[in-house]
Amino acid sequence: MSELTDFSKLCVHTITTKPWSVEEAMDRYAAAEIGGITVWRQWLDGRDIEKTGERMRANGLEVVSLCRGGFFPASDQKGIDEAIADNRLAIHEAAALGAPMIVLVCGAVPGQPLTESRKQIADGIAAVLPLAEEHGIKLAIEPLHPMYADDRSAINTMASANAVCDELDHPLVGIAADVYHIWWDPDLEEQIQLTGAKNRLFAFHVCDWKTPTTDFLNDRGLMGEGCIDLKGIRAMVEATGFEGFNEVEVFSERWWARDQDEFLGKIKKAYLDFC
Amino acid sequence: MSELTDFSKLCVHTITTKPWSVEEAMDRYAAAEIGGITVWRQWLDGRDIEKTGERMRANGLEVVSLCRGGFFPASDQKGIDEAIADNRLAIHEAAALGAPMIVLVCGAVPGQPLTESRKQIADGIAAVLPLAEEHGIKLAIEPLHPMYADDRSAINTMASANAVCDELDHPLVGIAADVYHIWWDPDLEEQIQLTGAKNRLFAFHVCDWKTPTTDFLNDRGLMGEGCIDLKGIRAMVEATGFEGFNEVEVFSERWWARDQDEFLGKIKKAYLDFC
Repeated sequence: MSELTDFSKLCVHTITTKPWSVEEAMDRYAAAEIGGITVWRQWLDGRDIEKTGERMRANGLEVVSLCRGGFFPASDQKGIDEAIADNRLAIHEAAALGAPMIVLVCGAVPGQPLTESRKQIADGIAAVLPLAEEHGIKLAIEPLHPMYADDRSAINTMASANAVCDELDHPLVGIAADVYHIWWDPDLEEQIQLTGAKNRLFAFHVCDWKTPTTDFLNDRGLMGEGCIDLKGIRAMVEATGFEGFNEVEVFSERWWARDQDEFLGKIKKAYLDFC
Repeated sequence: MSELTDFSKLCVHTITTKPWSVEEAMDRYAAAEIGGITVWRQWLDGRDIEKTGERMRANGLEVVSLCRGGFFPASDQKGIDEAIADNRLAIHEAAALGAPMIVLVCGAVPGQPLTESRKQIADGIAAVLPLAEEHGIKLAIEPLHPMYADDRSAINTMASANAVCDELDHPLVGIAADVYHIWWDPDLEEQIQLTGAKNRLFAFHVCDWKTPTTDFLNDRGLMGEGCIDLKGIRAMVEATGFEGFNEVEVFSERWWARDQDEFLGKIKKAYLDFC
């Protein structure tokens, strides 16, 4: 296999091929010689999680991460406690699946000051860290685009994610950098360099930003369909020494409505052409 | 008139009451004892601009600004030249109207590096500055939310706007701060303080961010309908010594479909309650 057709560092998120069950996804990804799979938790509903992970590895797939934990902020203690309990459950699930990492969509409460939400996020991660240590599970804070600052995440820039990492200062706490959320940031290169210096860049997610974008959640583009400088950002990421996967995370009603085998072929081509 | 019912520092953008012509808008705003009006350029189509401005002042309205110039970046020199010509036209229109300021939505070209667009923006402003000087018209860079970084503005934070102002270093070049675009920014207070220290905070626009927001352009909330800490941001702005207007700029299909007199009443109430 030539380098140009090497998909060993390509990972696909199960939500990218939403119409497929976790069994269909792992079989098709493996048949396509894709190296990695990131599993969204709802894909594990009703499954024996350990056996699911074993079957992935038997298929030659590396389990890259479990999506997602987080959503720590809440307006009362009950909500905060429930979030921590759910994140502990996610750590147990990741351990059972054999996933070395959980991606954190950190959460926000509309109307609650973002500074308070950021404090609750740091406190929430600190609360689950002992269990993460016990199982050796990394926790990757994913800064979310500022358009999600109302109810999905109060961590909206790499700088803000780096600040939480600095505060917690723990080798299991790092960052998942997703181009969709951070491509516009004038400080991007500097902040990615900082993640390298601190050895905390845990994951790299790719997709594209379409013009126009017509839905806040489910109108992402496949790499090459939009305006993001994917090669440029990938170069910044690799300059830190990052050797992990390029994880394709595309939420798209448009793509989900298409034949998923055809879509998987387009993902592979886009990975070669644009990443 | 008590302080609690003083609308002398309330300004409404003509686009906020989109169903109204400029004549209807100025008559209704004046009848409602609102102090200021910001005029969107398309409202002046087919009008004698000088007479329109005179009629506003005769009605007791202060013309706060003309919206909008900008859109400087382009993929070729022809596009750049056309943008500069249009901004010169906007300066002539502002002078005719008697507006002391033009708000700049700076522009971006999908796929063009944001660094290049930012350079074209600074160059474009520099190119029109001599004409702005001649007429004494301020140019207010409005940082736009990062969700508009693809095709509406490469200036997406107060820090980025401050950087362009630093580069141009001219008393007529400043910033229009709109809560919708900047409310999520962890550096907001620091960057607003900087605009104060540099005497460049020219305008303050208010509205709100709804949860959920269902349209990228025309689903803004009236103050109080969303999650923005309006009182907090207004306090940051006033701490710089800013004594200008609170300009209500709400793009909303929902509000435009309602009776506009009723809406204007709600704007006044929201201004008192939330700003």
